[in-house]
Amino acid sequence: MKKIAVILSGCGVYDGAEIHESVLTLLAIAEHGAEAVCFAPNANQHHVVNHLNGEEMKEHRNMLVEAARIARGSIQALDQFDADNVDGLAIPGGFGTAKNLTQWAFSGPDGEIRADVVAAIRAMADKKKPIVALCMGPVVVAKALEHTDLHPQLTVGTNQEGSPYEIEVISQGMEKTGANAVMKSIKEIAIDADARIISAPCYMMEAGILDVRNNIKQAIDAMFEII
Amino acid sequence: MKKIAVILSGCGVYDGAEIHESVLTLLAIAEHGAEAVCFAPNANQHHVVNHLNGEEMKEHRNMLVEAARIARGSIQALDQFDADNVDGLAIPGGFGTAKNLTQWAFSGPDGEIRADVVAAIRAMADKKKPIVALCMGPVVVAKALEHTDLHPQLTVGTNQEGSPYEIEVISQGMEKTGANAVMKSIKEIAIDADARIISAPCYMMEAGILDVRNNIKQAIDAMFEII
Repeated sequence: MKKIAVILSGCGVYDGAEIHESVLTLLAIAEHGAEAVCFAPNANQHHVVNHLNGEEMKEHRNMLVEAARIARGSIQALDQFDADNVDGLAIPGGFGTAKNLTQWAFSGPDGEIRADVVAAIRAMADKKKPIVALCMGPVVVAKALEHTDLHPQLTVGTNQEGSPYEIEVISQGMEKTGANAVMKSIKEIAIDADARIISAPCYMMEAGILDVRNNIKQAIDAMFEII
Repeated sequence: MKKIAVILSGCGVYDGAEIHESVLTLLAIAEHGAEAVCFAPNANQHHVVNHLNGEEMKEHRNMLVEAARIARGSIQALDQFDADNVDGLAIPGGFGTAKNLTQWAFSGPDGEIRADVVAAIRAMADKKKPIVALCMGPVVVAKALEHTDLHPQLTVGTNQEGSPYEIEVISQGMEKTGANAVMKSIKEIAIDADARIISAPCYMMEAGILDVRNNIKQAIDAMFEII
């Protein structure tokens, strides 16, 4: 049975991993008869956001503990990640990717990225094992592969359709890391066959859950074609 | 466009709404071209459980605020529920149904049920609008309809296959409320055509996400056949 690592960054779109994208990634992996193996950094989130009113809450939550909610308790600390034990890697989106895994939300491409995240992504790239990056996940991949020869083609969406985010600015930031940013709609994915990296816009666009489901299925299907 | 209310009880299987079941309910509703309208009680959860180690955490979380993570911020307090504004109702499972919506986890069928939950379920039943109850959701429906003439047929699974829970005991508890408990496998749903109530075992059984996805799709499909 193929095993696909899924890196989560908390539990909730505004301060962690986007929940729909995470669950629909687990579903798409299961639809290929494969096993999802969840990971999250064992560290506090940047902050906690009240998802009802958008305000910051004065408390601390740990990414691994919160992501365990999505994983139903079956999750490991990211520093236990071993690329030899998995066949592919998926990174769902949510602000956790840009606030917890990287500091992109605050400093763009100059923001720091966690060492355990870099280690996991580079190990997969070194072994030519495929990576799927969803929504804001591509900025994590771009930052992790900065200063390498890979220059992956990645998408965070398109500025030709509705998006609540500045797709142009994020794409320019990815270019600054050496990545090749491309514009893709919610109906499309980007496939970098050489780098073996697949990306999909998902909730970076004004999308409903059904669009996001189909976009993730496209991306995971493309991963299994090259595993 | 049809509207289906979804009552959530937090965010996470051990102290709130089961996340996979909640997201897959939203997906199945969207697949019918309908709109999901999320609700949760505006009240604290019974407790907060660390989903990594199962231990109770010394903090308080509000059901509505936490469920907003699943609903991406688009959620209303359950006391705002109006059965006239929706065409159906779905209740995903998770321990939140048995710890927050009812006290079933602590006192079985003798446990209290929240007044806003009773009001919502009885209003739907009075208007002959269909209700889908998943996983432990059926105990909430059973308790809400206690002392009515409905005696709904409901399932929380079967004792003929693997389950981490005491299906027999829970079924007996439902019978005590006046419901008619039936045994159904993860491949099946229970349909009470008279009461217009559909139930499905989901994660009450030893199931994977793909089984749960299909079980929920079956139940939501059955709801749309009678809307």
